[in-house]
Amino acid sequence: MGIVVQKYGGSSLADAAAVKRVARRIVESKRAGHDVVVAVSAMGDSTDELLDLANDVSPLPPARELDMLLTAGERISMALVAMAISDLGFTARSFTGSQAGVITDSVHGKAKIIDVTPGRISSALDDGHVVIVAGFQGVSQDTKEITTLGRGGTDTTAVALAAALHADHCEIYTDVDGVFTADPRIVPTAHKLDRVSYEEMLELAACGAKILHLRCVEYARRYDIPIHVRSSFSQLEGTWVVPESAVDADSPEGEPMEQAIIAGVAHDRSEAKITVVGVPDKVGEAARIFEALADAEINLDMIVQNVSAAATSLTDISFTLPRADGQTAMKALAALSDEVGFASLLYDDKIGKISLIGAGMRSHPGVSAKFFSSIAAAGVNIQMISTSEIRISVIVDEGLVDDAVAAAHSAFDLDADEVEAVVYGGTGR
Amino acid sequence: MGIVVQKYGGSSLADAAAVKRVARRIVESKRAGHDVVVAVSAMGDSTDELLDLANDVSPLPPARELDMLLTAGERISMALVAMAISDLGFTARSFTGSQAGVITDSVHGKAKIIDVTPGRISSALDDGHVVIVAGFQGVSQDTKEITTLGRGGTDTTAVALAAALHADHCEIYTDVDGVFTADPRIVPTAHKLDRVSYEEMLELAACGAKILHLRCVEYARRYDIPIHVRSSFSQLEGTWVVPESAVDADSPEGEPMEQAIIAGVAHDRSEAKITVVGVPDKVGEAARIFEALADAEINLDMIVQNVSAAATSLTDISFTLPRADGQTAMKALAALSDEVGFASLLYDDKIGKISLIGAGMRSHPGVSAKFFSSIAAAGVNIQMISTSEIRISVIVDEGLVDDAVAAAHSAFDLDADEVEAVVYGGTGR
Repeated sequence: MGIVVQKYGGSSLADAAAVKRVARRIVESKRAGHDVVVAVSAMGDSTDELLDLANDVSPLPPARELDMLLTAGERISMALVAMAISDLGFTARSFTGSQAGVITDSVHGKAKIIDVTPGRISSALDDGHVVIVAGFQGVSQDTKEITTLGRGGTDTTAVALAAALHADHCEIYTDVDGVFTADPRIVPTAHKLDRVSYEEMLELAACGAKILHLRCVEYARRYDIPIHVRSSFSQLEGTWVVPESAVDADSPEGEPMEQAIIAGVAHDRSEAKITVVGVPDKVGEAARIFEALADAEINLDMIVQNVSAAATSLTDISFTLPRADGQTAMKALAALSDEVGFASLLYDDKIGKISLIGAGMRSHPGVSAKFFSSIAAAGVNIQMISTSEIRISVIVDEGLVDDAVAAAHSAFDLDADEVEAVVYGGTGR
Repeated sequence: MGIVVQKYGGSSLADAAAVKRVARRIVESKRAGHDVVVAVSAMGDSTDELLDLANDVSPLPPARELDMLLTAGERISMALVAMAISDLGFTARSFTGSQAGVITDSVHGKAKIIDVTPGRISSALDDGHVVIVAGFQGVSQDTKEITTLGRGGTDTTAVALAAALHADHCEIYTDVDGVFTADPRIVPTAHKLDRVSYEEMLELAACGAKILHLRCVEYARRYDIPIHVRSSFSQLEGTWVVPESAVDADSPEGEPMEQAIIAGVAHDRSEAKITVVGVPDKVGEAARIFEALADAEINLDMIVQNVSAAATSLTDISFTLPRADGQTAMKALAALSDEVGFASLLYDDKIGKISLIGAGMRSHPGVSAKFFSSIAAAGVNIQMISTSEIRISVIVDEGLVDDAVAAAHSAFDLDADEVEAVVYGGTGR
C-alpha cells in the first residue's frame, strides 16, 4: 500500500482527549499498512487566543511577527499528536512547515505554496515513522522567513504534501460526515454526496460551502489528488472529491454510479451589494469604477450592468463583494463621484447568495428556469443573477435565504428520505 | 556604541503588560545608541502548562517531541516582544534558536551549545532592527533536529550570543536587583555585590545561589563576557560578573574597589546524604561503589571518607547527591552489597549545605576556623566538610540552615546597615 495524507483541523484537536482519539485513528491507518503523513491545525481555539495576545500587545502587529506567533499553534498540536502516537507503541516524527519543505512566496499572512521538497518526510517514512506536519505554515523561498498560508491553510498543506509525495489520496477529517447537497442546518433532509467532481467542489467552495477551501480544491485538481472528506468523529465513508471522469466511473465498491444533474445548493451570507446609480453610459466610465475598486484591492464577486434607459443614457451598475470590504469600497467610489458623475451609491449588506451547482446542468436545458421558478414559488424575490457553465447564482434578501435554499433543494429532488447529517463540533481552520 | 545582549526570563514576561514593559526597556537601550539583541524565555508559567499538556497525552513523551513542544513557548514570547517594540516605533525581528544559528549537540532536553553562527542576527542589526532570539533552544549540528538546552538555558543562550557577536556585555534581567551576599529571604541584611568574579559566581551558582546558572557563568568566563545581573522591575545598577582582575580594578564610575575577602554565603536544600557503613578498607572497594553510581548516571557533590578504625579495617564513606537521584542511588548500592560487603546503607534527605565563597580567602588564613566557629556558636552541628580554593562547604541539619547562614553572614561582616533586597516576582527559566 502507498502513502496516505490525513488532515485534522482544530475542532478534531480540541484537547488532550481529542489528540489521543486522533492518534488512535492515525494508528489504524498505519496498522492497515499505509505510510501515513498527517497535517494538523492548531488545537481548538488556540489560534484565536494567540491573536488576542497579539492584540493586547500591539493594535497593529507586524505581519512577520504575527506569522511567527501563530505558527506556535501547530507546533504545539503536532508535538502532542506525535507523543500520543508514541504512547500507542508506534513512532512518530513531527516537522514544522519549514522542516517539511513547504516553500512559499513571501506574503506574510496569506503566502502561496510554490514548491514542496519533502526530503525529510520521505526519510522519516522510510525509517518506518508516522510523520506529523504543521499545517498552515511554510518558509519563504527568498528570505527564509516563516510564513502562514491564511484561511484553509492546513487543507492546502495536506493536499500539497499528497501531491509532492505521490500519495494515493488525501483524507480531510472534519466535524461532518462529508459534503452534503445543502447545509444540513438549513435543509435537514440534505444528503451526503458519495462523489463530487473537482469542478463542482470548486463552485461549492466559492459559493459558501465551508467544508473545503477553494485553494485546497484547486491544488488537488491541478495535481489530480483524490480527496476523501470525512468525519473524525465517526467511521463512516465520506465524500470523494475526484476528477469528473471518476464521478461517472464505478465506485471503489463496484457499484455503478450515475451522475446527478445537480451536486448541491450552496449559500453565502458574507457578501454585500453596492449599486452605482445613474452612471453615464459612455465608453470607459464603468472601467474607471472597477479600476478604482481594483486599486483598493477589493475582490468583486457578481457584477450586473443593466441596459441604459434610452431617454437618459444613464445605467445602473451593481456588484457584490465581501462585507468586510464594504466601507473601503464605498470610500473609493465616493472619491470618484466628480470624475465619473454618477447620481448616487446604494449599499446593502442584508443580502444572501444562493447557488445551484452541478456538472450535469450543462446537458440539461431548463435547469435555470426550474431554479428561478422554485425560488419564486417560495415567495422570494431575485435581485441579481449570475451564471457559469456548471453554476447558477442568485442574490436574494438575507432573511429569505433559508426558504430559497430549501425550495431549490426540493425542486431538484435532492431531499433524502431521512436525516443523514450529524454535525459533531465547531469548525477548524 | 557596540552590541548589548539582554536576557529576560519568564517572570519578566508574565503577561501582555509585562511584555510591553520589557519592550520599553529594550527601546531605552536602543535609544541610548546600542545595537540590542534580546534572548527571551517562555512567558510566565507557560512552559509548565505545555508540560502538563504533554503529560495528559503521554506519561513518557519522546524527548524529541517534548523539545518540539516546549520550543513553542519562546516562539510565542519572542514574537510578542517584537510586536510590542514595533508598537513603540522601532523595528524588531524575532528569530528561533535555529534561525539565530544556535548549534547544539543532539541530546534532547539538555543539549550543549557547540557553535553559534549569527549571520542572520548580524544582518538584521546592520539593517537597524532590534533582534529578539528564542532562548533555551537550538538546532542539532548533525541531524538538524530542534533541541532545548535544559535548565538555565536562556541565560546560556544570551551569553553565547554575546560571545559570538562580540558584544560589549550581557545583561541578565531577573526579579531581584543583583547578586546578594546571601539569600535575602533568610538574611534580610544581605547586601548587593557591585562586582563578583566569574570564579566566585561559579561557586555561588554551584552551591545553591539560583540567580545565574552554572553553565551560563562558565560560558561567560570562557569567552570573557561581562555579565550585568539586574532587575527588570527597577532601574538600579545590579551586579557585574567579571574577570577577577576587574573586580579589583576601578569601577566604571571611577570609584576604586577593594576586593572583599568573602563574596557571600550560599545555601542549598536540594541534596541528600548517603553513608555506606563498614566498607572493607581494601584497594578498589571504594572505586567499585563510585563506579556503580557513575553507571547509574548520578552526579555526586561532596564525598568524605573517614580513616578506618585500626581495629576493624572498616571505613565509612559518605557523599551528597541531588535528592531526586536518592532512590536510584540506593538501589544501585544495594545491588552491590554482596560484592563489596559493606555493613549497611544510611539515607538522609533532611540536610542542607552552607557554603562560604570568596576569592579573598586564598590569602586570608583562618577563614575556615572563623566559619566553623560561627556555625558552632549558633548551636549548629557540622556533619561533613568540603573545601576548594575559594569555597568552604559544610553539611548541617536541614532545619538549622537559616541559623547557620545568618551566623556566618554576620561573622564575616557582610550585614548591610539597612535592608537592600527587594524580591519582585517569581523565578524565570
